[in-house]
Amino acid sequence: MTDYQQQYDSLCHEIGEAAKLDSIQQLLEWDERTIMPPKAGAYRAEQVSLLAGLIHERRTSPLVGELLESLADSPLAADPHSDAGATIRVLSRDYRRDSKLPQALVVELSKAKVLAQQTWVQARSGNNFPLFRPQLDNILRLMREMADAIGYAESRYDALLDYFEPEAKTSEVAAALSALKDDLAPLVAEIAQSGRHPKMDILKRDYPIAAQEEFGKRVAKDIGFDFEAGRLDVTHHPFCCGMGPHDCRITTRYDQNFFPSAFYSTLHEAGHGLYDQGLRSDQFGLPPGNYVSLGVHESQSRMWENMVGRSYPFWRHYYPELKKLFPSLGDTPMGDFHFAVNDVQPSLIRVEADEATYNLHIIIRFELEQALLSGDLPVADLPGAWNEKYQQLLGITSDDDADGCLQDVHWSAGLIGYFPTYSLGNMYAAQLFDQATIDLGDLAEMFGRGEFMPLLSWLREKVHQPGSRYTAPQLMQNICGESIDHRPLLKYLRTKYAPLYGIGH
Amino acid sequence: MTDYQQQYDSLCHEIGEAAKLDSIQQLLEWDERTIMPPKAGAYRAEQVSLLAGLIHERRTSPLVGELLESLADSPLAADPHSDAGATIRVLSRDYRRDSKLPQALVVELSKAKVLAQQTWVQARSGNNFPLFRPQLDNILRLMREMADAIGYAESRYDALLDYFEPEAKTSEVAAALSALKDDLAPLVAEIAQSGRHPKMDILKRDYPIAAQEEFGKRVAKDIGFDFEAGRLDVTHHPFCCGMGPHDCRITTRYDQNFFPSAFYSTLHEAGHGLYDQGLRSDQFGLPPGNYVSLGVHESQSRMWENMVGRSYPFWRHYYPELKKLFPSLGDTPMGDFHFAVNDVQPSLIRVEADEATYNLHIIIRFELEQALLSGDLPVADLPGAWNEKYQQLLGITSDDDADGCLQDVHWSAGLIGYFPTYSLGNMYAAQLFDQATIDLGDLAEMFGRGEFMPLLSWLREKVHQPGSRYTAPQLMQNICGESIDHRPLLKYLRTKYAPLYGIGH
Repeated sequence: MTDYQQQYDSLCHEIGEAAKLDSIQQLLEWDERTIMPPKAGAYRAEQVSLLAGLIHERRTSPLVGELLESLADSPLAADPHSDAGATIRVLSRDYRRDSKLPQALVVELSKAKVLAQQTWVQARSGNNFPLFRPQLDNILRLMREMADAIGYAESRYDALLDYFEPEAKTSEVAAALSALKDDLAPLVAEIAQSGRHPKMDILKRDYPIAAQEEFGKRVAKDIGFDFEAGRLDVTHHPFCCGMGPHDCRITTRYDQNFFPSAFYSTLHEAGHGLYDQGLRSDQFGLPPGNYVSLGVHESQSRMWENMVGRSYPFWRHYYPELKKLFPSLGDTPMGDFHFAVNDVQPSLIRVEADEATYNLHIIIRFELEQALLSGDLPVADLPGAWNEKYQQLLGITSDDDADGCLQDVHWSAGLIGYFPTYSLGNMYAAQLFDQATIDLGDLAEMFGRGEFMPLLSWLREKVHQPGSRYTAPQLMQNICGESIDHRPLLKYLRTKYAPLYGIGH
Repeated sequence: MTDYQQQYDSLCHEIGEAAKLDSIQQLLEWDERTIMPPKAGAYRAEQVSLLAGLIHERRTSPLVGELLESLADSPLAADPHSDAGATIRVLSRDYRRDSKLPQALVVELSKAKVLAQQTWVQARSGNNFPLFRPQLDNILRLMREMADAIGYAESRYDALLDYFEPEAKTSEVAAALSALKDDLAPLVAEIAQSGRHPKMDILKRDYPIAAQEEFGKRVAKDIGFDFEAGRLDVTHHPFCCGMGPHDCRITTRYDQNFFPSAFYSTLHEAGHGLYDQGLRSDQFGLPPGNYVSLGVHESQSRMWENMVGRSYPFWRHYYPELKKLFPSLGDTPMGDFHFAVNDVQPSLIRVEADEATYNLHIIIRFELEQALLSGDLPVADLPGAWNEKYQQLLGITSDDDADGCLQDVHWSAGLIGYFPTYSLGNMYAAQLFDQATIDLGDLAEMFGRGEFMPLLSWLREKVHQPGSRYTAPQLMQNICGESIDHRPLLKYLRTKYAPLYGIGH
């Protein structure tokens, strides 16, 4: 046992050093995306790739392999949900997977991604899909090779999805998203038929940026984001970067004439940040201190952004202060403001979509990327298939591919299997929120009084502190009694929209 | 020869990777000193020490040692001032020195520095020297171990000084500083006896920070600082960090009611930044692309801060704009403003000291740190010794340690042997400025027209582009015909102060 304990300590030391290098890498990337001087880009790429090599070397070293093999049958691994057991289980799994990838494929893929992303930027700005086509073909070919090298039970897509949502099966995700689609389509149609529309000009008045920043920080702090262990900065594409046990940095972008842009990005990223800040710092970089899946991560951001930040009681609490900060609101009634931030409208761009239609954007991508990967959909036919699905699900079609199938960076970056985690996050959020309501009572009442700590404490205990000691499906099962379920999300959306649009519950 | 060329390329590759890791380290430190969330400090210390170990490992690897040994007698090393020759010469010297340092000491020291700095911040803000005392004791213990491991000819201090001013001997530096002290004392006394004083209230009016920032950036840009390859941020203790071939970050601190504080810090750090930005980017991380010594680095910052930025023609050019930016200047005549920024007055704070007394601050620190290192001065007695020397040389004593021996970051950062380079810089600056005047003609006339490029181009050619192909004494010899000489500085000061204070030339 002593011997095993020593081996386990060595393992934690090796992986801990890789985590330190990885957290340094996070700082390099955060800096690059926020404040780095423009001419520093070329050398930054060299720094990043040197560090990436060092991290990969440590994580896949023969020493780590030997330690994991020896520890697999040790008493430390007996309980797969203990700190040690989970660490051995998760690291063994990652090690087996990563070791199956031929080095040549890893190198080829990383080069292909760089080229594909550069080409995608050009193709999007020039609305030139044919330019991007061979690159996407190449990415897909390499993704297939990668999936084949790793292996899978049912479909190639399983092997890719696993990077983002470990232990999830494509068939289960597909079933949940399909059920969601079947129920969402009528909801969106009912809303459209209601003929009701919020007064959107309310959100497009003068919202001075300094006041937006003050308000965003204030609310982020109120919901529990610790600015002593984090920051809020400005970027083009908002993100959250948990770069150390007490260093989580979120970003947003300000539009002086559109209030929701910065505020909901701040709240969304702060939601991610609360998860990062809620992870166990004594296990930083090890599975018990790591987030469990992108779907669960997204459940945290979407819950704070939407279920909290777009709720009626939330604005009942904050609206008086908002009116003081932004004189352009004048005598606008709170109800009108609340309706405006809950506008539902089919649109072309995923990142600007409302809560209800957002999932349709995701479902389209999820279906298309599976078809692309299997080869059922030739890349050449992607623009047509994209437009057809948008017409079918959202009733609109883009005039060009730039706002169509070229709008997202993901495919060019080799992120195939990533999209469904956005909708998993929405479904998980609703499931968790229901359970929190059962456990804690009327959350809305609390929000109305500006009390967010009960919900945060509950999330810390149930979701954050377990880290990756359970898989995401197990974690959801433990908390809510089921893994994925689309019904709570539908119920939540109907309950919210019923009074606004005069539709049925 | 082909073989040697391959060996040389391998050497550059290895050292280039160490330089990449070192530049990453710079980012970690810049981030820590400017914007890092406070709670992230402990983990940052671990990141920094891991990286320090990796850098040391690479720089002192057996491979590097073998390559250097083989190349030492190669034709590539024949000219010690060629790119390859200087690289082999300087790296061999560093290798011999660094190989003597045990890895454990390097790691311990780098951890100790981070913790000492964090403690120093608290100690200074709380005026609590006893809090800092054990950290300084620890730093000094490690510094002695370091000096003993490296070895030295005359004194332990030599071994430390060499890190900042390579090839300098403590005895030579002490001789120059002693001569400077002997000549400065009468000058400062004559000024005091003149009974003349500028109207200092001019500088203490309302100087809104946003306008200060605008003006500081404007002037930094005018003298040639490239903001596409650099940044200006805020810190408590201004510094310049050249962290990549096109990434140089300077910092300053603003005081709304004291104009010179931020402006001259900005100009000072921009002067450092011009040196960093003027180094050859194709040789980044290698001796031909490295600064030659801190003394020479400081000569650049002091020249732009003082010889340019405190000159009469400089303000003749900028004063009209300054008056527009700061209405509180009212009808204040330019001459009064110029006199005020050239006030000579014994004071407590080094970084706010005038050009003349500044060197006395340095001499105090130089003498004290030698005594601390040798053990002649116990750390517990530092505050008393500090106050005694201030009384003796400047005729004043601080009421507290925050404005006394806790005012500088250096000792907490393990920078012992660093202080004298400030006064070396002042002396070098005057020597270089004299030579530039001989070569270019009346620089003052140019400043009066807002023309700074002739001086910058001259510095680029003479000082920046040579990098470390010559030692600092050789470089000064090449440019000015002498190495260290305190007389040009004295002559410059007397010439400036004569009309202001009515003293002799």
